[in-house]
Amino acid sequence: MSGPSPRELPSWNDGAAKTAIHAFVEGCTRPGPGFVAPPDRIAAFDNDGTMWVEQPAPPQFDFLLRRWAQEAQDDPTLASEQPYKAIVERDMAFFERLAVQDPAVVATLEKAMAHSWAGTTPDVFEAEVREWIDTITQPRFGVGYTRLVYQPMLELFDYLKAHDFRVFVCSGGGRDFMRVFAEETWGIHKENVIGSAADYSFVDGRLVRSDQLLGGLALGPGKPAHIFAQTGRLPVLAGGNADVDIEMLTVASFGLLVNHDDADREFAYSKGAERSLATAQERGWTVVSMKNDWATVFPEVLPG
Amino acid sequence: MSGPSPRELPSWNDGAAKTAIHAFVEGCTRPGPGFVAPPDRIAAFDNDGTMWVEQPAPPQFDFLLRRWAQEAQDDPTLASEQPYKAIVERDMAFFERLAVQDPAVVATLEKAMAHSWAGTTPDVFEAEVREWIDTITQPRFGVGYTRLVYQPMLELFDYLKAHDFRVFVCSGGGRDFMRVFAEETWGIHKENVIGSAADYSFVDGRLVRSDQLLGGLALGPGKPAHIFAQTGRLPVLAGGNADVDIEMLTVASFGLLVNHDDADREFAYSKGAERSLATAQERGWTVVSMKNDWATVFPEVLPG
Repeated sequence: MSGPSPRELPSWNDGAAKTAIHAFVEGCTRPGPGFVAPPDRIAAFDNDGTMWVEQPAPPQFDFLLRRWAQEAQDDPTLASEQPYKAIVERDMAFFERLAVQDPAVVATLEKAMAHSWAGTTPDVFEAEVREWIDTITQPRFGVGYTRLVYQPMLELFDYLKAHDFRVFVCSGGGRDFMRVFAEETWGIHKENVIGSAADYSFVDGRLVRSDQLLGGLALGPGKPAHIFAQTGRLPVLAGGNADVDIEMLTVASFGLLVNHDDADREFAYSKGAERSLATAQERGWTVVSMKNDWATVFPEVLPG
Repeated sequence: MSGPSPRELPSWNDGAAKTAIHAFVEGCTRPGPGFVAPPDRIAAFDNDGTMWVEQPAPPQFDFLLRRWAQEAQDDPTLASEQPYKAIVERDMAFFERLAVQDPAVVATLEKAMAHSWAGTTPDVFEAEVREWIDTITQPRFGVGYTRLVYQPMLELFDYLKAHDFRVFVCSGGGRDFMRVFAEETWGIHKENVIGSAADYSFVDGRLVRSDQLLGGLALGPGKPAHIFAQTGRLPVLAGGNADVDIEMLTVASFGLLVNHDDADREFAYSKGAERSLATAQERGWTVVSMKNDWATVFPEVLPG
């Protein structure tokens, strides 16, 4: 089997990761033991840390914390309650408990989301996300968050689509948050975006957001469950970067794990990814070294 | 503007319905006031009575009632409870209360679904549906139900796809029931099928069906809500045939209502469609006369 052509995955350096991706994807499309019928060619990728920068915090946290800081300022009685208290006091340890799905923390965030948006129509939330995208910059790089998408992953989307894969993003973050920028940033339709979401009802001719989640968080075991609900299948290929992606990677035939080892161009950390890195060794997932496997990280040269 | 070419919609007779569909769809794709950007080109269609025969009962009822009749026979204590009692006593009035979403009837069906499949993996349900498709015939036509799909609607799917629409089916019936045959029968992927569905959890490496619905029934106001959850949009074009489709048709720019007026080739009835037929007049939806607008009804010549 020949390697990838220079036109394919141009931001990927030659090496084990690129070779493994190429061998798997080509194998899916050729007669042989690795062949996958086109309807079954579903790929699913995590968002934070897999598709874009998640340090110093997942971008949606920046969006939510700005909104809730404003609410606490407008209504000081809120500042004694979580999560507003943690925001006012800059208690980041509180939010780190979300990554391990601490039920008490998750509950306060759900309550705060409902306080902000329950009873509103989708355009209200979308306009707020749009304004955040257009005006807020990431602290290290000084550009808007959606410009911090990883160029090699966009090329992987193109490569998969050229081989008749349907590409989905499945994030523990907000479905409706991601859908605002998915089409322009990732080149996939809104219906290919899966995530944690509020339930909506259709009342008096309008879609109205409820205070309840639809189907639980799309984190950990919630990822295969949400992917099945959306697509009727489990993914053949999955990409992630953290412990909350383990279940999604486990159900796939090919698992890709992005390792953040590039302090110069991005960040170097393995917090929250310790188990996934160990599981990658056990299960033979393809670990992508940002430092060694990616010739470029972002679509443009950044000031940072 | 010229009319549709003979290659387009060949099973549709020339007439007001075909002309209206053609004018709307062409208008979506040409510069002008009717233009719709490609990402927004979502079409959504009901299933029972819109895509296939729903008389003497919606096909999924045939599937469920056979299963529950067997369960009542195997366990006679069930026969004193609903819905098993109605099945044993052939009390069809009980099931007609489902069409008007009688909460008591809906609750008994949910309970019976949970009794049959809660705790099972998706392949169990899929195999049962597959066997039903392959072995059970519709009483009037003597062929399997999926062969009773409407040929003109399949051609409408092709026509819409050729104009860069993404076509979805949204039914009050079961999402996972329809997904078994969607790809071979309708030519759309499983992820383009929206319907009422059980919530699934991922437990010990497997997807397991719960006894709860995910997001309520996709009937009436549930249709726009489910379509938004799946796609992030409301449909530009929608097709239905009954009162439970009114909300979905109302949110679309173009509404298509199939009128069952062809006793010779299919069935003639307006029960459950009285309000939708009246609303079509008020709102200018395009009413499709099966008798006059469709040159052929089914993909093949049938014995019935």
